[in-house]
Amino acid sequence: MNAAAHGRLLLVPTPLADVTATPLQQVLPLGTLQAAAGLDHWIVENAKSARAFLSAVQGVCALRVPLQQQQLSVLPKHEQLSAQAARALLQPALQGADIGVLSEAGAPCVADPGALVVAQAHELGLRVLPLVGPSSVLLALMAGGLDGQCFAFHGYLPVADEARRRALQALERESAQRRQTQLFIETPYRNAALLRALAHTLRPDTRVSVACDLTAPQAYVRTLRAAQWRDALDTLPPRAPAMFGLLA
Amino acid sequence: MNAAAHGRLLLVPTPLADVTATPLQQVLPLGTLQAAAGLDHWIVENAKSARAFLSAVQGVCALRVPLQQQQLSVLPKHEQLSAQAARALLQPALQGADIGVLSEAGAPCVADPGALVVAQAHELGLRVLPLVGPSSVLLALMAGGLDGQCFAFHGYLPVADEARRRALQALERESAQRRQTQLFIETPYRNAALLRALAHTLRPDTRVSVACDLTAPQAYVRTLRAAQWRDALDTLPPRAPAMFGLLA
Repeated sequence: MNAAAHGRLLLVPTPLADVTATPLQQVLPLGTLQAAAGLDHWIVENAKSARAFLSAVQGVCALRVPLQQQQLSVLPKHEQLSAQAARALLQPALQGADIGVLSEAGAPCVADPGALVVAQAHELGLRVLPLVGPSSVLLALMAGGLDGQCFAFHGYLPVADEARRRALQALERESAQRRQTQLFIETPYRNAALLRALAHTLRPDTRVSVACDLTAPQAYVRTLRAAQWRDALDTLPPRAPAMFGLLA
Repeated sequence: MNAAAHGRLLLVPTPLADVTATPLQQVLPLGTLQAAAGLDHWIVENAKSARAFLSAVQGVCALRVPLQQQQLSVLPKHEQLSAQAARALLQPALQGADIGVLSEAGAPCVADPGALVVAQAHELGLRVLPLVGPSSVLLALMAGGLDGQCFAFHGYLPVADEARRRALQALERESAQRRQTQLFIETPYRNAALLRALAHTLRPDTRVSVACDLTAPQAYVRTLRAAQWRDALDTLPPRAPAMFGLLA
C-alpha cells in the first residue's frame, strides 16, 4: 500500500463558544482555518454545527469547494460505530482525498467522538494530522493551577448521590496518593449539584477548580479549597459548559 | 480586595517547533497573538526563548511596548519555587498590570512549569485567562486514535530497565481495567530505548501510539500494536520531541 497516494485525515478543532459570537481567528490559528478551507470531505459529529462552522470559515478563507458541495458524513453514535463503519467513512482517503474530522465543539477525539475513526485510519496506514485549536480539557487544566505534570480526565462521574460521593472520594484518594490532578465534566444543568457535592464531600483543604465558558468573554475560572467553595457556590454561572478539577 | 482593579494572569501557549521555522499564525490564533502583543509583564520559563517568541509576535502584531522594555521574570526551577516567590512574581498584577506566562514550548502549566504561579493567582483572587495554542499532550492524544474520553498523562517514566518495565506493566494493567489511555514522555535521546521497551514489554495486542515533531512539516504520528512495533522500530525519527501513548 502506498500511503503517499492516499489522502490524509485532518483533525480540525472548532470553537468552544457559539461560532456566530466569537470571530474564528480569536480561537483558531490561520493554519487550521486554511487547512479546513482546503477540504471537501468531512466526518462530523453533527451536520448542522459542521455547516455553521464551515460557513464561518468561509468568512475568513475562501473555501476551495463551495459549501453546498462539501461532502459531510455524520459519525454514528459511539455505541453504533463499528470498525467496519469507521473504515467505510475513510473510503475517500483511500481514493486520494483528504478528510477532515469535526466534533461538535473543541478538539475531535478528546472528550468527544472520533477516536475509532482515527484508530482505523492508522490501521489503514493513512497519515493523521492533528491541527491546533481550543480544548476545554486543556484550557481548564492550564487555568486551574492544579498539577499539570500528572493528570487524568475521567469524563462523566455517576449521577446518583451516593455513587457520586464514592466516586469523588476515590478520585480524592488517588489524587493524594499520586499527586495527580483529576478532571471531569457534568451536563450543565447538574453543575451546581456536582459543585455542592465537591464542597461537602471532599476534605476541607482539597483544591477544586471550576472553569466555565472558556474562550468566551464571560469565561469563569476559579480554584478554591473545598471548604471555601461552601460559601461560594452561588458564584457558579448557571448552566454553563464547565470542566471540574480536584487536587488533594 | 477588588479584583477588577487588579491585572489578570494570561496563559500564553507558544509553538512546539522552532519559532523561526514555522510562521506563528500557523499554530497560534490571532486572538492569542494580539493578547500577547498587548502585554509587557511576563513570567517565563526561559528568557532567551521568551524573547525569541516576542520577537516573532512582533512580526505579526505591533507590540504595545517595545521588546527592549518588556519586563521578563524568569520562573525558578520547580523545586526552588515557593508560594512566597510565586506571589512576588505576581506583584505587578496586584498593581494593575496584566501578566503573561510563557513556557519553553506549548501550553504553560501542562507538562511544563507555571502551575504554582497560577495557584497563587487564584489565592490572590486574580483573574486567570487561558489562551488557545498548541499542546503536545493534546495533539498527540487527538492523533493517536486511542481513547480520548478517559486518559491520564504521567510525565516521565523511570529510566532504569527493570523499573521502566514494571512501570509499563502497571500502566498497561490500569489501562485495561479502566479503559484509560496512558500518556507519557521521554527525553528525545532515550525515545528509541523506550519504544523498544514498549514493543517487548507490553502484551502483543496493546496499542502503542507515538507522535513526534507535532505541528512541524515532518510530523510523525503512528499507532501500532506492541507486536507490530517490533518490526517498525526503525521508523521512529531520531531524537525528536515525542509523546507516547498506550491503550490495552
